Amino acid sequence: MTLTFQARTDRILKARNSLLCVGLDPDPAQFPRSFRSVPKPTATKKFLEGIVRATYPFAAAYKMQLGCYLGLGSYGLDLLAHLTKKIGPTRLRILDLKANDIGNTMRFYRQAAFDHLGFDAVTVTPWLGWETLEPFTEDPTRGFFVIAHSSNPGAPDFQEIPTPRGPLWQAVVAEVKHLSQKHHNGGVVVGATYADAVRVARHLLGNEFPILVPGVGAQGGALSTTVREGVDARGRALLINSSRSILYASRGPDWAAAARGEAERLSGQINQLRAGLRTR
Amino acid sequence: MTLTFQARTDRILKARNSLLCVGLDPDPAQFPRSFRSVPKPTATKKFLEGIVRATYPFAAAYKMQLGCYLGLGSYGLDLLAHLTKKIGPTRLRILDLKANDIGNTMRFYRQAAFDHLGFDAVTVTPWLGWETLEPFTEDPTRGFFVIAHSSNPGAPDFQEIPTPRGPLWQAVVAEVKHLSQKHHNGGVVVGATYADAVRVARHLLGNEFPILVPGVGAQGGALSTTVREGVDARGRALLINSSRSILYASRGPDWAAAARGEAERLSGQINQLRAGLRTR
Repeated sequence: MTLTFQARTDRILKARNSLLCVGLDPDPAQFPRSFRSVPKPTATKKFLEGIVRATYPFAAAYKMQLGCYLGLGSYGLDLLAHLTKKIGPTRLRILDLKANDIGNTMRFYRQAAFDHLGFDAVTVTPWLGWETLEPFTEDPTRGFFVIAHSSNPGAPDFQEIPTPRGPLWQAVVAEVKHLSQKHHNGGVVVGATYADAVRVARHLLGNEFPILVPGVGAQGGALSTTVREGVDARGRALLINSSRSILYASRGPDWAAAARGEAERLSGQINQLRAGLRTR
Repeated sequence: MTLTFQARTDRILKARNSLLCVGLDPDPAQFPRSFRSVPKPTATKKFLEGIVRATYPFAAAYKMQLGCYLGLGSYGLDLLAHLTKKIGPTRLRILDLKANDIGNTMRFYRQAAFDHLGFDAVTVTPWLGWETLEPFTEDPTRGFFVIAHSSNPGAPDFQEIPTPRGPLWQAVVAEVKHLSQKHHNGGVVVGATYADAVRVARHLLGNEFPILVPGVGAQGGALSTTVREGVDARGRALLINSSRSILYASRGPDWAAAARGEAERLSGQINQLRAGLRTR
């Protein structure tokens, strides 16, 4: 029997004993000094391969921002496909597309992300309406994370608009739950920088629905609250993303060791926080 | 002196005597029958080159959906760069990204769209907040179109939510006007399928702000209302997008002639409707 995306997420988080998602968002301006003289495509590939190797024992998932790869031109797409293959199916591979378009176009994005680039899940935004999310609900084995409450300062402009269903982002969370009833493949993105948002999202979703949380680390969100409020009754269904604090932990020759150290420290800290909770 | 995006748009629409934007959204399943046995990348390139050649005399702009190209893998990005070069600066080249992300990532999208792929403008969505649009306001020569009211059935779910500034999409239009005050490079997307939305958008924007209108043709929006209500006082600042009705006008050996005929018919009909209006 094929696992649904939610069941597979749970299995991976359990097997890896980790809630850590490493954000592979390459920014050549921040690469280690030893990469400065290397051509950008080669530098990006070598750097990210090194980061994957260094963080592999501690990562349950990897997330790639499409925007960071488009700037490399066609090479960027080859690199995405290369990385998903290299990472393999023992970790979740998430394409951070924040895609949103009419259904017809969403189906093209789906095909590109899953069939061509080899990802397990994508992120989407809901601005064009609920029906535009439907193409991503249809395949139980592939996940979709809807941006409910983002981590940036401008997030409240739209996401906290009051509606009869509560602040708009909470209506989004409720709708994701509804859209996933049949295929158990939806999740939400909720930023760690907004106190209480993670708790409310978990309350609305119940168990099993994965919450992907950016904004811990460089963006300043509190880790302990995120873990305490974000896990489900089994102490899982939560992915905490960290990009810059791992990738750019050092610009010196020890960059890979520093990245490994930061991934180990962060996943360990998350597990310590989990250990203090009463879970099944 | 360098022209702002709005001034350049006006100059191009005037020089071309056209408001037609051809949507280059390749869907191999709908290609002419003669392309059926050709490998997909080659077929897509040959087909789109043929469409550009056939429609060139009648088009003021070309718009490409990123989603349709990602499915071709790395070849898709090369093809986008090839097409923008082939089309050249006498027509507007718009990348339909519907991008939205935190500022840092939006800058990567900007770099990819403008510097690497050679586009003049992009589309963006506002779900993550006003600040996320700012990276696109900074270069006066490159445009950004914010999806205010889309053409699909689900558009009202978010876009028509009531707010103190009116329905949410109207607050978006007002904000685009505000964000463009300094650099005159913003525009909006408003679907032809919602009666009155184009009129309200023009009323809120005044002259010069380009409105990009999808949904005429295959999606069923009314052309005459769109033209009458959408143009500014000079009878311009409006781009009417048509994709499927031009690209797939015929699947037979006459596909290029049929595309040319449809582009000529549509741009002619738009001009006839414009001629009946009192403009400066």
